[in-house]
Amino acid sequence: MAGTNSERELLTEGPAIILAYPQLGENIGMVARAMANFGLSELRLVNPRDGWPSEKARSAASRADHVIDGAKLYGSLEEAIADLNFVYATTARDRDGYKPVRSPIVAARTLRQRFRGGEAIGIIFGRERTGLTNEEVALADEIVTFPVNPAFASLNLAQAVLLMSYEWMKTGMDSEEETSFQAIAQRPATKEHLQGLFDHLEDALEARNYFRSADKKPKLVENLRAVLTRPSFTESEIQVLRGVISSLDRFTRENPRGSGAPAGRSRKVQGGGDND
Amino acid sequence: MAGTNSERELLTEGPAIILAYPQLGENIGMVARAMANFGLSELRLVNPRDGWPSEKARSAASRADHVIDGAKLYGSLEEAIADLNFVYATTARDRDGYKPVRSPIVAARTLRQRFRGGEAIGIIFGRERTGLTNEEVALADEIVTFPVNPAFASLNLAQAVLLMSYEWMKTGMDSEEETSFQAIAQRPATKEHLQGLFDHLEDALEARNYFRSADKKPKLVENLRAVLTRPSFTESEIQVLRGVISSLDRFTRENPRGSGAPAGRSRKVQGGGDND
Repeated sequence: MAGTNSERELLTEGPAIILAYPQLGENIGMVARAMANFGLSELRLVNPRDGWPSEKARSAASRADHVIDGAKLYGSLEEAIADLNFVYATTARDRDGYKPVRSPIVAARTLRQRFRGGEAIGIIFGRERTGLTNEEVALADEIVTFPVNPAFASLNLAQAVLLMSYEWMKTGMDSEEETSFQAIAQRPATKEHLQGLFDHLEDALEARNYFRSADKKPKLVENLRAVLTRPSFTESEIQVLRGVISSLDRFTRENPRGSGAPAGRSRKVQGGGDND
Repeated sequence: MAGTNSERELLTEGPAIILAYPQLGENIGMVARAMANFGLSELRLVNPRDGWPSEKARSAASRADHVIDGAKLYGSLEEAIADLNFVYATTARDRDGYKPVRSPIVAARTLRQRFRGGEAIGIIFGRERTGLTNEEVALADEIVTFPVNPAFASLNLAQAVLLMSYEWMKTGMDSEEETSFQAIAQRPATKEHLQGLFDHLEDALEARNYFRSADKKPKLVENLRAVLTRPSFTESEIQVLRGVISSLDRFTRENPRGSGAPAGRSRKVQGGGDND
């Protein structure tokens, strides 16, 4: 397959991207970069207006050299798709025809299914300004169109390729929630640790008469515990919070830690008491 | 909201796009175009390196003037997100942290849900070359990262904005199969019309001894009917096919239609017999 390069660990499988009569070398380069971003590599060019090879294309490709080097040149769109089994045409305009029209996500799923079944597949993109003619669209099996703002529907060529390449890559993932890296797993602290935080804070507040009267205290405690329960603090977060409480509880602005003045009450602080 | 323009029928709702320290005016322009393509309009710029306003940005925006004109300038990322309730940071690099990491589709759904709940939302994108610093990422609620080719992961700034804008627009659609235009509805012909095609063709073939012998005929007819049934031809397609059969049946290369020679058999052709 054109564009594969076994020296680098690159994803290179998937549909051929066929540019019918592209105009600017820069755009071809940006197409190559977008393809490489999402693991495609087989680029087919039908009569690029400004010639081929193109230094402007190579420069705009931002080191997607394997795509540029592997690009194949064709004299007509018919030749460019001759060896393929199933082909989409991309268009932004209503063609008023009988060919099935698909969204990118449905088109990508169809391509993935056919690819897994061993079919050679491709996606055709038209000229920058005018897109594909009706005759060119007629060569494809189905149409794919993008859900754009009706008042501002003109997608840049490379961006149209990017969207289809992106949808293609997504169909190869186990789930649409998958990401290439993950947050470090965080487990909420056990209730024992949470209770330790409640006790610590309520003791410090009690000493300051925060709860005013015995009959008001239960409701105030309930509210406080609700506030501290909702975030599902981890054990290390609770350590940080207890350090904060200890600092506020044991020292004053006038007599900060290390000032030599007596540290108020000498309550032994559990856990992260030295984090303050 | 910045960037809305009630004179044009534009989709303009959705998350603010915040570019932190963008470098090239061209890239800001391409971001504006991508936003406009998918109905976003609120662009916030934190200290663009090459200044603002920028003619290069306006030119690259390809008439997304409402986005460029509405862009707001900020001196720091903190200021740029001060009025927002929920913010994503985009990054391609594993941050080795505790912040939740989401795929674009999950992030877009979360944004849509919060937007519907009345929250002011935004997505932060970093500098072209180096992205966001850890301190900048820390200002966001969650991280969104793109499912790229691990060996070629560097997305162009405008393309990263495009993907998030596209996923945003998709979350506003009734279904992921929705397209802005449809193929003309096609209904398979009734079985009576299909049977008419069978009769017409089989009669023409019988007259030419296509079926060889009576014992071979049933299997050949079965095969022929299977071939003609599978495509689910419409009534108008069957008319076309019957016109083709009539032409082949009634005329020869030596005596084509209109040549004045007798038209062979004078069988009256049902339906589209004049389409040949």
